[in-house]
Amino acid sequence: MSPEEFRRQGHAAIDWIADYWASLDELPVRAQVAPGDVRRLLPASAPEDAEPFDAVLADLDRVVVPGLTHWQHPRFFAYFPANSSPAAILGDLLSSGIGAQGMIWATSPAVTEVEQVVLDWFAEALGLPAAFRSDGPGGGVIQDTASTATFTALLSALHRASGGEARVSGVGGTQWRVYGSTQAHSSLVKAAMMAGLGEDAVRTIAVDPVTQAMDVDSLRDAMVEDVGAGLRPVMVQAACGSTSTGAMDDVAAIAEVAREGGAWLHVDAAWAGVAAVCPEHRDHLAGVEAADSFVTNPHKWLLTTFDCSTFWVRDRAALTGALSILPEYLRNAATESGEVVDYRDWHPQLGRRFRAIKLWAVLRTYGLSGLREHIRQGVTLAEHVAGLVASDDRFEMVTEPALSLVVFRLRAGDEQTLAAMEAVNASGEAYLSHTTVNGVAAIRLAVGSWRTTLADVDRTWRALQEAAAAHG
Amino acid sequence: MSPEEFRRQGHAAIDWIADYWASLDELPVRAQVAPGDVRRLLPASAPEDAEPFDAVLADLDRVVVPGLTHWQHPRFFAYFPANSSPAAILGDLLSSGIGAQGMIWATSPAVTEVEQVVLDWFAEALGLPAAFRSDGPGGGVIQDTASTATFTALLSALHRASGGEARVSGVGGTQWRVYGSTQAHSSLVKAAMMAGLGEDAVRTIAVDPVTQAMDVDSLRDAMVEDVGAGLRPVMVQAACGSTSTGAMDDVAAIAEVAREGGAWLHVDAAWAGVAAVCPEHRDHLAGVEAADSFVTNPHKWLLTTFDCSTFWVRDRAALTGALSILPEYLRNAATESGEVVDYRDWHPQLGRRFRAIKLWAVLRTYGLSGLREHIRQGVTLAEHVAGLVASDDRFEMVTEPALSLVVFRLRAGDEQTLAAMEAVNASGEAYLSHTTVNGVAAIRLAVGSWRTTLADVDRTWRALQEAAAAHG
Repeated sequence: MSPEEFRRQGHAAIDWIADYWASLDELPVRAQVAPGDVRRLLPASAPEDAEPFDAVLADLDRVVVPGLTHWQHPRFFAYFPANSSPAAILGDLLSSGIGAQGMIWATSPAVTEVEQVVLDWFAEALGLPAAFRSDGPGGGVIQDTASTATFTALLSALHRASGGEARVSGVGGTQWRVYGSTQAHSSLVKAAMMAGLGEDAVRTIAVDPVTQAMDVDSLRDAMVEDVGAGLRPVMVQAACGSTSTGAMDDVAAIAEVAREGGAWLHVDAAWAGVAAVCPEHRDHLAGVEAADSFVTNPHKWLLTTFDCSTFWVRDRAALTGALSILPEYLRNAATESGEVVDYRDWHPQLGRRFRAIKLWAVLRTYGLSGLREHIRQGVTLAEHVAGLVASDDRFEMVTEPALSLVVFRLRAGDEQTLAAMEAVNASGEAYLSHTTVNGVAAIRLAVGSWRTTLADVDRTWRALQEAAAAHG
Repeated sequence: MSPEEFRRQGHAAIDWIADYWASLDELPVRAQVAPGDVRRLLPASAPEDAEPFDAVLADLDRVVVPGLTHWQHPRFFAYFPANSSPAAILGDLLSSGIGAQGMIWATSPAVTEVEQVVLDWFAEALGLPAAFRSDGPGGGVIQDTASTATFTALLSALHRASGGEARVSGVGGTQWRVYGSTQAHSSLVKAAMMAGLGEDAVRTIAVDPVTQAMDVDSLRDAMVEDVGAGLRPVMVQAACGSTSTGAMDDVAAIAEVAREGGAWLHVDAAWAGVAAVCPEHRDHLAGVEAADSFVTNPHKWLLTTFDCSTFWVRDRAALTGALSILPEYLRNAATESGEVVDYRDWHPQLGRRFRAIKLWAVLRTYGLSGLREHIRQGVTLAEHVAGLVASDDRFEMVTEPALSLVVFRLRAGDEQTLAAMEAVNASGEAYLSHTTVNGVAAIRLAVGSWRTTLADVDRTWRALQEAAAAHG
């Protein structure tokens, strides 16, 4: 592709995206295909001869779009949002064009330094403790996902608790224990599996049946019992905004217990943490100054195209102690000077792209005031949904609204609740997901897109009411 | 940013990239900054109010470009290439615009099915065994990096060898052993550390001093000795194209030993594997049909913007057995039908972007014939470099050229070799990296960019000759 051809096709790709976004309102939110439908439309082998890029664009319309569930749709309310934005898309595009590798400072210094500065900016914007800043013993890094952040936190915790022995001799020989509530994200168990501890090493702590927050007394009891049985607490995960209902664990109280037990405290605020750009949404992070690590995902609710999971540690020595490797071909004067950070030692991967550009672009082109407005819009719309639920006797709230997440059900029962949700999803009108709370089925509606308006929420509510009439 | 503004700024971003590429030839390849130089140019905090996107573009020129080592530069010969291409950049741009999450089939079916088809295409294009195809018990997936692929392979191996016990009870209790040569990539040790086995679990096998390939007799002896001592072989890694010198392990012979020892065979062809698009470069993969897993990185030499590491397994049940987690909120009819693949269970992360679009775009817009031409151009230029080394008595080859990698030195000694390389790197004229082979320092020159011409190679050689005159 010549430079001129790249410009032409690049402009066409940009226009395709703008047109795709403009078309979303008319598309069914959930893909309407059955297994194999997409595959069947594609040839069996790669082409021998070059095809024009226009053919790829044409196949996006013909093959891909009908097979997509449209996460950027204004009536996508399932799971948590993974919202994208013009600024982030263009920021990431520039990263692709630059094509630099930032595994160590020396391989492209700006990749590392811009990331450090942007993570410092973002920590300040969220009101996080100064201990997480890069100018002290801590620091931040962009991970691909919160799953990786949690895994990395656990490896750091094992490094610290074992006095460096885990990386040398492995995790056998000590009966490590990891703690999270019944509402902790599944990535906590996956992290324990991957780190060689196994699922059984995770002790699941009960939650308050109303708030769904971890019962801190139960945590303390469990830890005391475990220590008495010769087990060794290594990490506690506090969830700020659980996946199921947005439950907020009491970080300050958990920090106290973690400290007593000698365990690393990791705060998983993957979805809810970004709301702290608004001062009024910082309460749920109270106590975070005692955390050893903290993660939140701008790629969920904060307009930064996946992947961008911002992760901070209080003591980067534990992190790099767990993960550092220095092969000969990466030895260099800057690393040996100790004046730079080599992000290769901050995550499982070696290679890393220039992910900071997209977050930098989002922070600058929205400004903190614009980001606050975005978060407040989501919260306001969720409060509106909660009002709608309260206004219709067939429905009831299952938990209190948490930021932009509303969890509710049909009083008629589980089957009716799930049938009504499935009817809305199948219609393509909106897309919701489900969970179970205290054993009963519930519908989750998470507002997140910058495209979602009051009209979208009302339209979705009408669809739910119609489904309730049919299934309730 | 309004749709019209997105189009305008999107076109500007595309043009910025085209202009950046056009400017590369005039830029020093290696960044000319000292630690802190980039950071100093940035404000201390995120802006309160929105800035125009043009300000971000302007800061790329002012702040970022001087702090970059330009991996897309035609005279970037360090490490291995991480080449980008117009098709891949635009493919990834479209993925950002679509913004879909493919953690499970149901969350956006096209993300999974296009990836399956493209991985089948690519396996066929490389001449990989049919066992890796998605229509049998195996299959392929795009990982972010080969480090993650190797880690995932090790977790799968532990799952198989432990009969599923490792994920439940952890890796303690058995003395696992992992094998790789002295030339194995550092990610093998990192994988053992992360999986909870520790560095000491990796037994390093000697290599042939000339070819730098693993000494298979030593592997067999080590494994027999370990089994005799009550240790348990879990995985052997064969390197096809080692990082240091491009050494090619004998996969077929290693497969036999791995089979005898009951170990998983993982083939790490991160850099060299993509050369198998050319039938004449498949010899080094002989025996791969006996491998349990195989990884190669289109994001290195095959024009597919980072991250795109293609990974195949013969038996996906071991992989998903090691990594599957099914929380309530992801339960769905398609998963329960068993008719679909949920890629969430194929890697450490949960979230995943639509990475297949960029590889799909590369395979189609170059065609297999175009990709062969690209690989052959790199090999031809490397052979030319080898000829230049042979023609100058001050230089000598350290190993035989491996595909597009040439490893050579100054006969005058280590210090002179490294000084000459540093002089070229410091000048900005070209960028090379170093290694040590049998204890002596050597310069690595890896050709990879589609922009690199014979003139670029000759210009780099002249710079090396001048540096040799000054330092040799």
